[in-house]
Amino acid sequence: MAKRPLILVTNDDGINAPGLKYLVDIMSLIGDIVIVAPDSPKSATSQAITINSPLYVSKCNNHSVAKLEYQLSGTPADCVKFGVNEILEKKPDLCVSGINHGSNSSVNVLYSGTVGAAIEAGIQGIPAIGFSILDYNWDAKFDHLKKFIKSITINTIKNKLPSNVVLNVNFPKSGVKGVKVCRQANTHWKEKFCKRENPMGKEYYWLTGDFINNDKSKETDEYALKKGYASIVPINFNLTAKDYIQELKKWDFNG
Amino acid sequence: MAKRPLILVTNDDGINAPGLKYLVDIMSLIGDIVIVAPDSPKSATSQAITINSPLYVSKCNNHSVAKLEYQLSGTPADCVKFGVNEILEKKPDLCVSGINHGSNSSVNVLYSGTVGAAIEAGIQGIPAIGFSILDYNWDAKFDHLKKFIKSITINTIKNKLPSNVVLNVNFPKSGVKGVKVCRQANTHWKEKFCKRENPMGKEYYWLTGDFINNDKSKETDEYALKKGYASIVPINFNLTAKDYIQELKKWDFNG
Repeated sequence: MAKRPLILVTNDDGINAPGLKYLVDIMSLIGDIVIVAPDSPKSATSQAITINSPLYVSKCNNHSVAKLEYQLSGTPADCVKFGVNEILEKKPDLCVSGINHGSNSSVNVLYSGTVGAAIEAGIQGIPAIGFSILDYNWDAKFDHLKKFIKSITINTIKNKLPSNVVLNVNFPKSGVKGVKVCRQANTHWKEKFCKRENPMGKEYYWLTGDFINNDKSKETDEYALKKGYASIVPINFNLTAKDYIQELKKWDFNG
Repeated sequence: MAKRPLILVTNDDGINAPGLKYLVDIMSLIGDIVIVAPDSPKSATSQAITINSPLYVSKCNNHSVAKLEYQLSGTPADCVKFGVNEILEKKPDLCVSGINHGSNSSVNVLYSGTVGAAIEAGIQGIPAIGFSILDYNWDAKFDHLKKFIKSITINTIKNKLPSNVVLNVNFPKSGVKGVKVCRQANTHWKEKFCKRENPMGKEYYWLTGDFINNDKSKETDEYALKKGYASIVPINFNLTAKDYIQELKKWDFNG
């Protein structure tokens, strides 16, 4: 029998998030688990890293199926860097991040700490997947995701991924009709800043907004999710807009 | 004479950074300036946004050429969102971010708060440019960049940019032979975590590392910069790895 794969697990909702526990339990059916996760919620931290503050690290034992488990005072991307370079003696066979409590489809992928961690692993040459569910609640139900997470994970270990590509997987809140390979929908948020006053009389704002989707294509993650499917988008972290290189070369920079 | 363009200026080094002042001064030769910048340094915050903490905003007047100027307790991406949705009555004609003190070429683009702000503007349909210099020093010299920043900015206003594309511009520390249109080099950091002990005896780490560039192509930003040119990379924020969609559709997710 082949050796069990070594799987690094992280997330952005923090070491105590139910979504992490669920993902760890599924991964323990497939391979040996090492967890390195933020010690507190780090939602919407994108691929931020911590360069101007110290990082505190503690060993912990919240997840009995894990071989090793650490919590870190930094971001999800920090967790991957620390896991790969300080904790693990060999490169993991896979990195999974999540299950995020909330959507990371369409434009949300850019703000996502969950996917930021997966991209960080991809940069380090490790096949990686970010998993998210369209349910912000801490008591979200995950049982309907199990067979799909197992299947996507086993496929990723078996087929590998090209360099510069990781997977962004989102699941509907309940029921999953199947898995659709999609492109990222072109969407944006129309922000509303909610003004409040603190007890000292100083004004502050909460960032909120409305989600705007004018992308009507049936090939998008938003469409698949709306129709009850899990969306899987291969994402590329060499950001070069190759199609625009030739046009840009026509600009006159001596003008 | 055509109306002067409205230009939103931000950065990630904070409202008091010399690079911001220099960029504002150049932009004031081209258009009307509104500044919204972080109230403290926010390096390496990528496209993080602030959703779990309040945002404090203050009007300020550090840059006399600006029509309006605000500092914000959040990230560069927050600054763009706040500027576009709370301060400005019409959509700006351009958003520029920088001049960042330090490189945002190759893989660094993914961690960059400077470019995170430019991408945020791009999402909102605003042509956007991130400018950086390969010099971390607060007293970096900028005079050799002036004619190139003017030229790139005027070209961007004139030619516009496709949706989903913004520009990532990096300059050598001294001397600029010209401007090269490039692709992002495929590089990574090999992390080293530097262990210390705080005065209370508790261990902590600093994230440091060595920059690894195994991409030997002459089409990359790293190559152009090494040869003394400014690099300009068109970057795409729809992350879909289009080339891998067909391959991924062959995977069997029912297995």
